[in-house]
Amino acid sequence: MTSEAITVLGLGNLGRALAETFQRADHPVTVWNRSAAKAEGLAATVASTAAGAVAASELVVVAVLDHQAAQQVLSGVDVCGRALVNLTSGTPDDARELARWAAANGAEYLHGAVYAVPQTIGTDASAIIYSGSSAVHERWQKQLALLGKVTFLGVDAGRASGYDVAILSGMYGLLGGFLHAAALARANGIKAGELTPKLLSWLTDLQPALTTFAEEIDGESYSGGESSLAMNQSGLATLIRAAGAQGVPFAALDSLKALVDQQVDAGRGEESLARAVESLGVASQRFAG
Amino acid sequence: MTSEAITVLGLGNLGRALAETFQRADHPVTVWNRSAAKAEGLAATVASTAAGAVAASELVVVAVLDHQAAQQVLSGVDVCGRALVNLTSGTPDDARELARWAAANGAEYLHGAVYAVPQTIGTDASAIIYSGSSAVHERWQKQLALLGKVTFLGVDAGRASGYDVAILSGMYGLLGGFLHAAALARANGIKAGELTPKLLSWLTDLQPALTTFAEEIDGESYSGGESSLAMNQSGLATLIRAAGAQGVPFAALDSLKALVDQQVDAGRGEESLARAVESLGVASQRFAG
Ligand SMILES: NC(=O)c1ccc[n+]([C@@H]2O[C@H](COP(=O)([O-])OP(=O)(O)OC[C@H]3O[C@@H](n4cnc5c(N)ncnc54)[C@H](OP(=O)(O)O)[C@@H]3O)[C@@H](O)[C@H]2O)c1
Ligand SMILES: NC(=O)c1ccc[n+]([C@@H]2O[C@H](COP(=O)([O-])OP(=O)(O)OC[C@H]3O[C@@H](n4cnc5c(N)ncnc54)[C@H](OP(=O)(O)O)[C@@H]3O)[C@@H](O)[C@H]2O)c1
Repeated sequence: MTSEAITVLGLGNLGRALAETFQRADHPVTVWNRSAAKAEGLAATVASTAAGAVAASELVVVAVLDHQAAQQVLSGVDVCGRALVNLTSGTPDDARELARWAAANGAEYLHGAVYAVPQTIGTDASAIIYSGSSAVHERWQKQLALLGKVTFLGVDAGRASGYDVAILSGMYGLLGGFLHAAALARANGIKAGELTPKLLSWLTDLQPALTTFAEEIDGESYSGGESSLAMNQSGLATLIRAAGAQGVPFAALDSLKALVDQQVDAGRGEESLARAVESLGVASQRFAG
Repeated sequence: MTSEAITVLGLGNLGRALAETFQRADHPVTVWNRSAAKAEGLAATVASTAAGAVAASELVVVAVLDHQAAQQVLSGVDVCGRALVNLTSGTPDDARELARWAAANGAEYLHGAVYAVPQTIGTDASAIIYSGSSAVHERWQKQLALLGKVTFLGVDAGRASGYDVAILSGMYGLLGGFLHAAALARANGIKAGELTPKLLSWLTDLQPALTTFAEEIDGESYSGGESSLAMNQSGLATLIRAAGAQGVPFAALDSLKALVDQQVDAGRGEESLARAVESLGVASQRFAG
């Protein structure tokens, strides 16, 4: 039995890892990248146009910089009969737009959000959540599983991106906090390498608190108050003062404090920090809508 | 052998947990709180003034809202001969200031930064890092160990707070990111309880990347680029666009993107995201200083 042909559009860090993983599993791989040089060293068929690459395989995996790039790459290409799997990050509406375009052009569309770095693609540390065409998810399950653990979230092509923007925001919060932590440590003569294990161990210990916050948020009931808004307001004020005094202010802390201030000003200082989510405007939006 | 008397000043969420933990270990505990009602239900001797409480025990543990509160509580109190252990959050200079004040008043001063929530004080999930008087650290090691794992960072009273502000900034990055993630999920009809396990699992998978970033930061060498500044700039732009479109903008993301933009504008888009730490102004400060 011959393995199915697979096309990969985009050979950035992610696309290259995808192509290599399919190849290791003996799939004939066709690749295309805007700048041809990125295909060097890959034992794949290199197509000179995106259309040529798409013509080569029924399964077409896209991984380019952003939604606009994905649109440009696919624009004018005949995708009829293809299974398009797009792993490019974007908003829920971006994914729904491409799904509509694919349907109008005779293709099936599955959107994926990747939780892996290029080095871990194809290992146990890689997970991809998908939504959109269940036909693509079923027909190509084995090939998709090569890349990482598969979770299918249903037929709304935007749902995976809905999870993704939320998860990415959580990730960027952590990354921004980490960078600022490293800058503060440096200002105090502490190496990032000394700080990081202590920071990671505390962040791991915090995980049950986040689970409690999630329950409070879903129940819209914030009376717990083990980590009160007032205490966190004070903690943030201390931190902002310390960071300023050490020459490394970081406005992200002020943005968070503004959410907390809004709740404390409304007389809710004794309630849980989780209530600060309501400052993000969704509650009023829901009640208005 | 009678157990040593211990005084706790401040009966907020943390102070109360401290007093209860010492009591469970059969130490005679004297407590004082600004508003007396907080002492209710505690089987401790309640002092009517901070001075009275300090007179009752050689070991005095302080846990109040912030540095200013700690100064107010101790102001005018005779602390001669006392071992002051202050677990109130503050800046490195706050701690050094209190250490000088203690020395001038015949007391020994040890500063602690607590990595626990009140419920986990006295369990394996609690860790406290200390710096300042090594005499206090040695003499009261057993009692301090009741509260959580003890780490002693040396005789600079400000050092524990130096770690602390860095760790707190990392923590608040995560917390802010989590709150925004929950708001984005809600805007997409996803429950925080559904999102949180996926988010936590991805944040756990990210830990090795933070260790790599720490090495890059300490070496001031950012050529790795598995997670490039350019890719993250694009990811942040997508996320900011998605959050705005869903009615839940969060300016913390713009603050982080500004750090990334500064490096990309300087022509370093292919380098590692870790280089964004240099946008926080410390490097130039160091070279200037
Ligand atoms: N890397 C990761 O860890 C990771 C993890 C999860 C998700 N993702 C997502 O995966 C996607 C790709 O990431 P990456 O790491 O591979 O990015 P990358 O290394 O920066 O590569 C970007 C790719 O997009 C192409 N591209 C950019 N603009 C284009 C355009 N207008 N037309 C055609 N091609 C264009 C580039 O082609 P040229 O070579 O011609 O510039 C390059 O192949 C992004 O959406 C990212 O958010 C990445
Ligand atoms: N809770 C935690 O999870 C945690 C973890 C690590 C570190 N910490 C740090 O521990 C410290 C205490 O936290 P907490 O959770 O116990 O806070 P909390 O529950 O908000 O209690 C604050 C305490 O400070 C007292 N206070 C405030 N202003 C005062 C003043 N001007 N004079 C005298 N007393 C004053 C309050 O007395 P009244 O009752 O009279 O208002 C109360 O006892 C903070 O610095 C916090 O950052 C807390």
